[in-house]
Parts: sequence; C-alpha cells; structure tokens
Amino acid sequence: MGDFYLGIDLGGTKIMSALANEEGKILESLKTPTEADGGEKKVINNIINSIIILLGKLSLDKSQVGGIGICSPGLLNTAEGIIYESSNIPWKNVKIVKILEDELNIPVFLENDANAAALAESNFGAGFNYKNMIYITVSTGIGGGIVIDNKLYHGANNNAGEIGHMTVVPDGPLCGCGNHGCFEAVASGTALKRMAIDGLDKNQDSLINKLSEARSEEIDGKLIALAARKGDEFALRLFKRLAYYLGIGLANLINIFNPELIVLGGGVMKSYDFFWDEMKNNIERRALSVSLKELEIVRSKFEDDSGVMGALTVAINKNKLT
Amino acid sequence: MGDFYLGIDLGGTKIMSALANEEGKILESLKTPTEADGGEKKVINNIINSIIILLGKLSLDKSQVGGIGICSPGLLNTAEGIIYESSNIPWKNVKIVKILEDELNIPVFLENDANAAALAESNFGAGFNYKNMIYITVSTGIGGGIVIDNKLYHGANNNAGEIGHMTVVPDGPLCGCGNHGCFEAVASGTALKRMAIDGLDKNQDSLINKLSEARSEEIDGKLIALAARKGDEFALRLFKRLAYYLGIGLANLINIFNPELIVLGGGVMKSYDFFWDEMKNNIERRALSVSLKELEIVRSKFEDDSGVMGALTVAINKNKLT
Repeated sequence: MGDFYLGIDLGGTKIMSALANEEGKILESLKTPTEADGGEKKVINNIINSIIILLGKLSLDKSQVGGIGICSPGLLNTAEGIIYESSNIPWKNVKIVKILEDELNIPVFLENDANAAALAESNFGAGFNYKNMIYITVSTGIGGGIVIDNKLYHGANNNAGEIGHMTVVPDGPLCGCGNHGCFEAVASGTALKRMAIDGLDKNQDSLINKLSEARSEEIDGKLIALAARKGDEFALRLFKRLAYYLGIGLANLINIFNPELIVLGGGVMKSYDFFWDEMKNNIERRALSVSLKELEIVRSKFEDDSGVMGALTVAINKNKLT
Repeated sequence: MGDFYLGIDLGGTKIMSALANEEGKILESLKTPTEADGGEKKVINNIINSIIILLGKLSLDKSQVGGIGICSPGLLNTAEGIIYESSNIPWKNVKIVKILEDELNIPVFLENDANAAALAESNFGAGFNYKNMIYITVSTGIGGGIVIDNKLYHGANNNAGEIGHMTVVPDGPLCGCGNHGCFEAVASGTALKRMAIDGLDKNQDSLINKLSEARSEEIDGKLIALAARKGDEFALRLFKRLAYYLGIGLANLINIFNPELIVLGGGVMKSYDFFWDEMKNNIERRALSVSLKELEIVRSKFEDDSGVMGALTVAINKNKLT
C-alpha cells in the first residue's frame, strides 16, 4: 500500500490535480484545461497525463500511490464509480473509476464535489475539532456535505446533502432542477446575477452597468462584487438580499441538525464581507436560540483548493478503511 | 440489572405509562390524569403512583426494572435530565430525572417526545428494517426525530430534529417560536385550524360552521376532519392546502437526508386519507427524483402509543449501552 495519494478535481474548464502524503500535505499540484469539447477520451487523457506529470515531478512509481480520489459536480453513482451527468461536461454515464483503474492500476474513488470538500474540511480543515458539521458551497449553485460523528453521511443512495434544492420560497424563481424557489435559486451566485439583471432597469446608474459596458463583460457575481467593493449602493443591496435568503437556508439547517459547526465555501464566499453580518442577523432571527448556543459558523479553509483537497481526502480515507 | 422497563409519556392532560419486557412488548399500561394545575409535586406523585400500580399489577419488585424512560414535549436538557419548559405543563427547570431516581432508585432517562417516538419506530415499529429514517409527528405542532445508522442523531446539544421550525414560507404566518412561516405554522393541526377560521367568512355554508354550532365545540382539526369525512368541500380544500405545505417540508427533508424511510405520526395523520395522495404529488414535484428512488413513506406503527413506546425504547436502549 502506497504512502502517497492523488486528488483530481474535475471541473468544466480545468482539471486541478494534486499529489499529497497521508497527512493531506500537498507536495505537488497542477492545473490543466479540461478540454471538454474534445470528448470523453480527450478529458480522460488529460486526467491521466496530469497524474503522470505529478508522479514524474516527484520521481514516484504508481505502486507508491495508495489511491486516487476524483470529485465532480453532477449526478453520480459513487458506489459504482459512474458519472451519470456532469454539470459542466457533456458526459453521459462515464465509468470513470473503471476506466482510470484499468489504465493506471491504482484504486480510484469517486465522490460528489461538495461531499469531498466537506470531508476535507472535517479531516484537515476548519472542521478538524468538530464531530458534527455541515459544509456548504455557495457558488453557481449551492451544494452541501453532511459530516456526522466525523463521517460523511451519504443517505440511502449517496444523494444526501442536496441542500441547494430545499424549497425556501414556494412560489419563487425557477431553479435548474425544474422546481421553484429552491435555496440555490435565491441564494447562489446565479441568483445574485438574476437579481442584478432584474433590478437594473430601476438602477441604471449603478456601477454594475458601467463596469459591464466598460469591460464588455457579462454581469456576474464577480462584477457585482467589484461594484460593491467600489461602494455601489445597488450592488450592496443585492448582497443584502442574498444574505436574507442565505439566512433562511442556514437557519433551516441549524434547526434540523443542531450542528457544532457550519463551514461556508464556494466562489460567492470570496465576497463574504458584503453579507456576512447581515446573514448572521437573519440566522439569529430564524434559528432556535438553543441551537445557536454551541454553533460556530466559519469560512472554508481550503477555498479554491477545496475540490482537490476533497478528492485527496476521499482517497486517504478510503485507504484507511481497507 | 432488571429484565423489565417502564415508559412514561408525560402529556399536558394525561400521563401514559407502560411496563414492558426488553423486546418492547407492553405487559401492562395505565392512563392517569396529569393534574398539571396541582403543581410540580402533584404531577410527580402521579407519575410515581403510576409506576407503583404497574409494578403491583405484575407483582414485580423495583430491582427487576432495568430503567425508566420518560418523554416530554418542550425544552429539555436530556443529558442532565432537566425539563426546562414543557409545552403543556407550567413547569420551569424541573430536575425530573434526579427527583425520580432519588425516589425510586431505578435509572431514569429523559428524551424529547419526537426523538423517543423515532427510536421506537426504528427499534420496534415501521423503521425496523431501515438504517436511516426520519420520524415526523404532525399534531398541534410538528416535531421530528432523525435516525442515522440505527442511532438517534442528537446534534451538538440535543436539539436536532426541530424540523417544525424550518422556514418554508419566509413571510408566512407567525409561529409560536416568534418566527414567520415555519413548517409547523403552515402544516400542523394548528395551521389547519387557522386556515379554517380565516376562510369561514367566504365559506359560511361549510359543515365546519354547522358542526361547530350544533356541538358547541371550537373549530379544531378533529372537527374539520369530521366535516371532510361528510364530504364538505371547504374542509377537503383545507386538507389539500395542508398537503401542499406538508409536501414542501417533506421534500426538503428528502433532498437534505436522502433517507430510506419517512414515518409519519401524530394526530393529524389520523385524517391521512384526506391529504396523503396530494401530499405525495407535492413531494414528487419538489424532491429530486434520484432521492425518491429508494424512499418509502409510511404511517407510524404506534400512533397514540408512540410516546409511551418511545419512552420504553429509550430505557431499553440505554440499558443495552451500559
């Protein structure tokens, strides 16, 4: 059994890969384009090449690798190692675990990206000293990973933690899932963008408009954050609205789980200073005070590396169990 | 260590007590008035008398009792055995466990009523063959108990499962907790009553009105169910509305937990035939299809006995652990 581990974060535009020891310390890492348009074989070749490059950099042999973790958003069968659908890559039913194991002869483990990130925070990050925690990623969508008694809670068929699809506004905006008023339809980066576009008519002098024109860029979370950073009132109001809905969703999870810790990650959290206090006020308004007593809410330790650290942690954990 | 167990369901108007063997088979049971108006000592005397009567009926000695489980609604400290506040009895900070242990010299264990009922369903009832289940009681309020890997999930300070206070309509009706639009504010027996009273002006020919007058009874869930049973259109519409909100709350729990089983109990479930199909339709509209694949939704096995069976199960389980 090897002493090193590989983690692959399979994104729509880039593959983040890393090689670490069993304490989760990253020794080498690499970022390569996914090239999803090139088809399944191209993407898989890019993954395999990343692995070969990483091993080469440290002059390691495949036999020294205890396992490879791979994480992906989308609809997965983690038990059978199949990516049914990826959110960002036009894949259907790719048996990623079998393909990589056949090619590399190293054990490969697949996990949902939010679950993997939750495990990383629990084992090596913000959740290190906590038994029961919930990891929440607020990005284009909202995902969650539930850690109970230091173990990832998977549910009946590995789909637990889909907190982004909890209804918080029954007649709210349409969500990608087909339902209305899901948490991620009102409190994600996508929701922020939609609220900005909906409100621009009445806020035409907002910096969001001016920045979008000056940079010939579409309005998105980053642009809204830039406007907020420059003091734009409309942008700041959008973040306040986001805080309102984040507060509802988080209070719900607090009332249901009475967790010791909530860890917040994902791209939107980079702008946390625009909504953190307001979000906490909203949580306090809706969560039972008794469940707030033992609770801490913190930001993710791994931020942009949470996917690759998650993938690594999955590999390290699986290896410990065998 | 004894072979028999006692369970006490401490309600606002009655104390249900039972004596069982370690397989959870009830050998004798008793219902006595709580007499909450008589003060703390009166209630505790009533509990102790119930126990003495039950033991007498089977000619058992206290030394043959392995433990006493006691369950109560309200704000508890189960670890320290204190009822901070009961929903139905005007108690403050009653050290019920210490009081009963000092008096009886038998180990006593306190548990929240919904958690206890969840454990009973998991060990001896509808959840017997399932590892991950959620028990939900829909009554005056809505409570929940979460069973993960066959164990009750308690959270950081024993307050997990407060699903009745998940917000499902952010600007919805005021809840007893002070928040707006909680699950129990829109989908409980109390919510049904409120919807009936709010709608009666426009539905004056409803049987609900006539039954209330003929019987000189206040409008409540039972009366609405009676009207529905007689085919009253307004009463049936109220149950349809209840089904809408129940569907939202249950779909949220399904998306979050991906459970194998949901067990529904509580007084409102006695009228399940008026809303079951509609509730399931609403669940299917909002829950992720992948999380519905392995899911069963059933009614509680123990119904009115779920409190006392819960209390018994708590005692039996604690005894096994020691």
